[in-house]
Amino acid sequence: MIRSGLQLHPPAFGPDFCKSFEDLLTWRRDVRSFRPDPIPQGLMDHLLDLVQLAPSVGNSQPWRFVSVESADARTTVQNSFEKCNQEALAGFTGERAQIYARLKLAGLNQAPVQLAVFCDEATEQGNGLGRKTMTETLAWSVVGAVHLLWLAARVHGLGLGWVSILEPAQVAEALEVPSTWRLIAYLCLGWPEEEHDTPELERYGWQARTTQGRTVLRR
Amino acid sequence: MIRSGLQLHPPAFGPDFCKSFEDLLTWRRDVRSFRPDPIPQGLMDHLLDLVQLAPSVGNSQPWRFVSVESADARTTVQNSFEKCNQEALAGFTGERAQIYARLKLAGLNQAPVQLAVFCDEATEQGNGLGRKTMTETLAWSVVGAVHLLWLAARVHGLGLGWVSILEPAQVAEALEVPSTWRLIAYLCLGWPEEEHDTPELERYGWQARTTQGRTVLRR
Repeated sequence: MIRSGLQLHPPAFGPDFCKSFEDLLTWRRDVRSFRPDPIPQGLMDHLLDLVQLAPSVGNSQPWRFVSVESADARTTVQNSFEKCNQEALAGFTGERAQIYARLKLAGLNQAPVQLAVFCDEATEQGNGLGRKTMTETLAWSVVGAVHLLWLAARVHGLGLGWVSILEPAQVAEALEVPSTWRLIAYLCLGWPEEEHDTPELERYGWQARTTQGRTVLRR
Repeated sequence: MIRSGLQLHPPAFGPDFCKSFEDLLTWRRDVRSFRPDPIPQGLMDHLLDLVQLAPSVGNSQPWRFVSVESADARTTVQNSFEKCNQEALAGFTGERAQIYARLKLAGLNQAPVQLAVFCDEATEQGNGLGRKTMTETLAWSVVGAVHLLWLAARVHGLGLGWVSILEPAQVAEALEVPSTWRLIAYLCLGWPEEEHDTPELERYGWQARTTQGRTVLRR
């Protein structure tokens, strides 16, 4: 069945919305320090409903969520982080190593909600459309969904931190997910202890923003 | 230098913003039909300024943009799409092939602005932080930036279509970019001919949204 034709009532986004939307982009942070207060289940449900609106290749919606709640599972993730973070630290020397050691790179011991986000590489939804020549577009659809969740969480005052300093296969195994699920992101969610308009890595002297990615080549 | 401490004036996002933000997510589409009207350069510049606010692993900001303007370059991309799309069609039979053949999967012959978005796999920005165990997080940072651009464009009434039915190496070669740049997305931008709150792939009977990715496993 084809539903086509002009939709007559698209929303108009006025200057006030524009301004607030840009504030949202400015104040979205990778959050690593959380207050212990819980997140209402209704809010989490609402955010995960919104995630379903994310774009996906072929409308495949390949994102899969695991809420990591048990002490065992959380300890496994925390241990994997500690180990990988130590290994990363060992790769730096001098002042870089000193700065690295001072960075707080995960809120795993604080975040009330922790979500492991996977890509179901075996999904048949979408019938393979759009991903024959660029197969990674399936995983990239999950990344878009994570970015959407990040912004939607911030709208409600919630902080999100993306932890990538992990051994993905180990996390997937500990969470007992289907073998076709590939770990894309491990997310810490909670109420942030602080609000900032500047990335933590910039504030702590690791890496400031640059204009390198702002240049547009013309061809 | 460490800039830390509590930032005192974070924005508050009220219920009106919340509602409009959800409208934005609802009405963001993958657009394949554009009016010929140009996009003001000032608006494109503004959107690319906003893109710099996207999250990136280690604050690496690895996105690189090429504005594809010449007839030669556009023809190469269009030819790559036509070839890959024919090959994809040949992989389907019966009713699926009929539906696929009816789909308009790119607006390459109409979109006034076309951006090829790359990941600079050789960037030293970020000093490798956060991507030792999950190396794809660099490319994923570019995907987040594309998602941000998608939403920001829609705020201003602009449509964006992500074309992935392309031979990425061929496109990169035609655009004469550094060999360390990896093609992530080829984007068509322009004023959409129609507005919809439902994906085109759903309206044309290819793939409706499902609730499969809404289930949350608990561990």
